[in-house]
Amino acid sequence: MEPPAPPRRVTIVDVARHAQVSTTAVSKVLRNAYGASPEMRAKVRRAIEELGYRPLAAARGLRGQTYTIGVMLPDIRNPFFPEILDGVTGCLEATDYQVLLGPGCNGEKEEARVTEAMIDRGMDGLILVAPVSPRPHLEHVAAVVPTVVVGRHGHSPAYDSVGDDDVTGAALVVGHLAGLGHRRIAHIEHHETDPTRSVEMPNAQRADGYRRAMRDLGLDQEIDVVSTTYTQQGGYEGARELLSRARRPTAVFAGADIVAMGVLEAVAEAGLSVPGDISVAGYDNTTFAALGPISLTSVDQAGSEIGRNAARLLLERIANRGKPSVQVSLSPTLVTRRTTAAPPT
Amino acid sequence: MEPPAPPRRVTIVDVARHAQVSTTAVSKVLRNAYGASPEMRAKVRRAIEELGYRPLAAARGLRGQTYTIGVMLPDIRNPFFPEILDGVTGCLEATDYQVLLGPGCNGEKEEARVTEAMIDRGMDGLILVAPVSPRPHLEHVAAVVPTVVVGRHGHSPAYDSVGDDDVTGAALVVGHLAGLGHRRIAHIEHHETDPTRSVEMPNAQRADGYRRAMRDLGLDQEIDVVSTTYTQQGGYEGARELLSRARRPTAVFAGADIVAMGVLEAVAEAGLSVPGDISVAGYDNTTFAALGPISLTSVDQAGSEIGRNAARLLLERIANRGKPSVQVSLSPTLVTRRTTAAPPT
Repeated sequence: MEPPAPPRRVTIVDVARHAQVSTTAVSKVLRNAYGASPEMRAKVRRAIEELGYRPLAAARGLRGQTYTIGVMLPDIRNPFFPEILDGVTGCLEATDYQVLLGPGCNGEKEEARVTEAMIDRGMDGLILVAPVSPRPHLEHVAAVVPTVVVGRHGHSPAYDSVGDDDVTGAALVVGHLAGLGHRRIAHIEHHETDPTRSVEMPNAQRADGYRRAMRDLGLDQEIDVVSTTYTQQGGYEGARELLSRARRPTAVFAGADIVAMGVLEAVAEAGLSVPGDISVAGYDNTTFAALGPISLTSVDQAGSEIGRNAARLLLERIANRGKPSVQVSLSPTLVTRRTTAAPPT
Repeated sequence: MEPPAPPRRVTIVDVARHAQVSTTAVSKVLRNAYGASPEMRAKVRRAIEELGYRPLAAARGLRGQTYTIGVMLPDIRNPFFPEILDGVTGCLEATDYQVLLGPGCNGEKEEARVTEAMIDRGMDGLILVAPVSPRPHLEHVAAVVPTVVVGRHGHSPAYDSVGDDDVTGAALVVGHLAGLGHRRIAHIEHHETDPTRSVEMPNAQRADGYRRAMRDLGLDQEIDVVSTTYTQQGGYEGARELLSRARRPTAVFAGADIVAMGVLEAVAEAGLSVPGDISVAGYDNTTFAALGPISLTSVDQAGSEIGRNAARLLLERIANRGKPSVQVSLSPTLVTRRTTAAPPT
């Protein structure tokens, strides 16, 4: 038996026929244009309702707004990004905007593909979270569609940016660990491939903040940075390297909570205890860090507040594309938990 | 000083002028239509390149495909869903399809909004992960756009479905715990509000599988189900309730790993140890479960395999909308780790 043919999409012609009016009349009602009487409006609206007609946003997109905001996330596994997203959706809840997410995969090529796809689909605005693409690409995107960049430093006249002060955040961790008596404090950073971009990236700023704080405390000789990635695997590999050192660090500052997850894994595997043998701190203060059995000391950069600010700035930019660009920087705080304690004696 | 006016979007007219050809010629090249000479193609492609022209997917959408797949995820915090997504993107990697995600938020209203937005934006196909909407809504969506539903049971001629055998998965957990000597095995389920939908939902199937397995083992009297949600908070609340029982369970089967996260939190807070005082098992075998300090016993339902199957079926359905619907059910396996052991004596 042949399966039934799929139902045809209801068109404006069907609506016109059903309402017994012209297609021009339907179009007028849809566009909220002058020249459609209240009776006509009622008739057309009833036909739309009865047939389940849905105007294609594609078609609407050609005329104006699509009421879609594209949010590019670098990594859907990183538990920090849902915090940002909560703030974004919270801010847009009372509006007609729909959020759609695109995975950026921490790669320039993938980011170009996602941003182009979002522009192609006529999205009204983009929020790019921790993009790795060079500034000119971001400015190119921002020239085409209102854009807010989250988690990159440096000012651009082309887009608004929201982030936290990563240098201060890193200093909070180092200060806390040094205060507990640690000297051999190591850091696991996200490897930065592009030196020109480096100064803008949150990961580079955290590594820089770590180095500066160590120097300020007279611990220049103890500076020890391992470059991997901001992933669980990156944390695992970085910790394995640190644990194999002749003089093992007594504390590890992981550049992100997801990195700390991998560190905890490697430390457990090596038969060492946290914080007895080694202290571990993260960055982002995710729900994972707060989890009882983990109880990770971490820097809170108020992800939801970052997301709320990003969405607010984007709506303002959509309403007024020519407005001067705005930079919002939030102050991080340290949340100390059970993974950090005095070093072993 | 006035900020500079945003640059105007490059149009097909600009391309034609720049290439010194007609707009019809540009259109032919864009559509890969017959009747455009290689020289013409080269000229137009060069102009497109030089002007940075991007054809609007919105415009393309009116003519045919937009090469976009919409994936609705119920909860971006649940670490199981990235596994599915990995499988989906892996399968689509070599194609021109771009994946965009929409948050469904485990709510019928939110799901309707997201699916409508995806249809409105002319997406070529949808993958709906564990949707909570009633079957007629899903079939309505599938009638408009090729659709694959992940994690719902029951056959529909309107869409393909992919999932695991949740009854078997639950039985694996109960069998393992009973084999260790547990009798007071409790279960935390995701509260099902709609009895008609119940039989199709993975959460309901897991609760059902739990009940059946308990009965099969002669443990009818010990059946103890707490209804919360498949979230960390739900696990925390469910565990608090179970821990306050006069006869406390010796083992908790959480319906999802993210639920187990909350259970571990509540157990630690109560000053009890896992598995010394209480065994805990989850479902989904996420990277979180595998994490050293957590080491959670969990059911592996091969999320990435589920995602790969969903994407493959969707591509087939896009190519042939009238094809009979297909149901793929994968067999779960149990991964035992350190959170389950014999009950306290």
